[in-house]
Amino acid sequence: MIRVVKIGGNVIDDSLALERFCKDFASLDGPRVLVHGGGALGSRMQERLGIEPVRIEGRRVTDAETLQVVTMVYAGWCNKKIASLLQAEGCPAAGFSGCDGNIICAARRAPLEIGGKAVDFGYVGDVGKDSVNTRVLLGLISMGLVPVLSPINHDGCGNLLNTNADTVASAVASALGAELTVCFEKPGVLRDVSDSGSVIPALDPVSYRALKEEGRIADGMVPKLDNAFRSLREGTVRVTIKQASDLLDPGAGTVISL
Amino acid sequence: MIRVVKIGGNVIDDSLALERFCKDFASLDGPRVLVHGGGALGSRMQERLGIEPVRIEGRRVTDAETLQVVTMVYAGWCNKKIASLLQAEGCPAAGFSGCDGNIICAARRAPLEIGGKAVDFGYVGDVGKDSVNTRVLLGLISMGLVPVLSPINHDGCGNLLNTNADTVASAVASALGAELTVCFEKPGVLRDVSDSGSVIPALDPVSYRALKEEGRIADGMVPKLDNAFRSLREGTVRVTIKQASDLLDPGAGTVISL
Repeated sequence: MIRVVKIGGNVIDDSLALERFCKDFASLDGPRVLVHGGGALGSRMQERLGIEPVRIEGRRVTDAETLQVVTMVYAGWCNKKIASLLQAEGCPAAGFSGCDGNIICAARRAPLEIGGKAVDFGYVGDVGKDSVNTRVLLGLISMGLVPVLSPINHDGCGNLLNTNADTVASAVASALGAELTVCFEKPGVLRDVSDSGSVIPALDPVSYRALKEEGRIADGMVPKLDNAFRSLREGTVRVTIKQASDLLDPGAGTVISL
Repeated sequence: MIRVVKIGGNVIDDSLALERFCKDFASLDGPRVLVHGGGALGSRMQERLGIEPVRIEGRRVTDAETLQVVTMVYAGWCNKKIASLLQAEGCPAAGFSGCDGNIICAARRAPLEIGGKAVDFGYVGDVGKDSVNTRVLLGLISMGLVPVLSPINHDGCGNLLNTNADTVASAVASALGAELTVCFEKPGVLRDVSDSGSVIPALDPVSYRALKEEGRIADGMVPKLDNAFRSLREGTVRVTIKQASDLLDPGAGTVISL
């Protein structure tokens, strides 16, 4: 079975953590895909360039200048740094963005009605299972390559689009019928957010609903888990949420299933 | 036969010229590889970030900060923009840098003795025919993909290295035994640099030496032509130097042969 692993900013921003993760990921066996997010370098670069980040209702608006910066940072520096670190560990990594081989063709997000007016989120791409070109992705994997995907996609009309990396990872995992490991900053989904020892080992839709009603799962964890359950309904075999440093520990983290 | 085409900054910096070039390149038949340089965006980005460009003896020194900028610009923005434009024209392009699939493993340039002291050019990679992983490159071409290569390579030890794009194109063409088309700002090698109608249709080592002795070929044209002749000696079948806008005209430009 193919394994899709997603890492976020907390790994990418910490060069030692990134090196350790790459060593661990390289030591995994079998066909696999790595999906990475952006991290703080994108915002830092924007700040240094004097580009004011625009957020509406907590969501980043990606104007043309911001798109250029995130493409440079995510598809350029992060993607190539990760590929070179994995190569140094003997992992046959190859970095891609969605435009490459048309691996992921996204739909530019339509303006949303917020507070009575239409808000255009700019160069933001929505992706789902059907956006993923499994023929090309499987072809690359058959060649023995380990695809490393940045969250920059395209619309098929010559425009690049920025996509949430969790969504990319879910879409790729469901399209490939893969196992998905989402790495984040905590050791798993916690029963008590202030106690890192309170990892919930397994979650299904029933226990998830109960924990949400008790208020134990809230805030940023809700979209992450909604995303995980959607991915499972669309073909992903198993989703595990864990810390990147626990990648090689099969018992670590929270296993999400239907 | 595989065709390798190289474009430089004059095409990349002009969005209309780039779109026109992508349309022409997409209309070519057969297996092909595109190699692109950087263009002015790299220097402009460095300037906006307040990074002082360092040059020694006319050569850019690539320190860690400069490497990050050129990786962002060349491997990120330029590479992905070109791949997305080609995809929009129906060309199955896929952007790569040397680290991806270990396509090009470069040797970090050793310090050079200049004016009695050793000068370290930083993260600069030298490549030759043997640096090119033809197995992976031919595998990608067999999949029907059209590789688009940025001049950012790696050293196999986790470091990215900046390489001259003309050298990358020559190395790739000789490793693949390909035909090489080098696009630049003039319609070919000129007998009189001030007369764009004075294109020399063909050059071989004998006529090249004679024109150099007459002073008709000088300055930036010399390393370009030395590079072309080296590439031919190492396996490239034919080198044509022409304007990007003449890509589809088989009679345009200067054909270099041994």
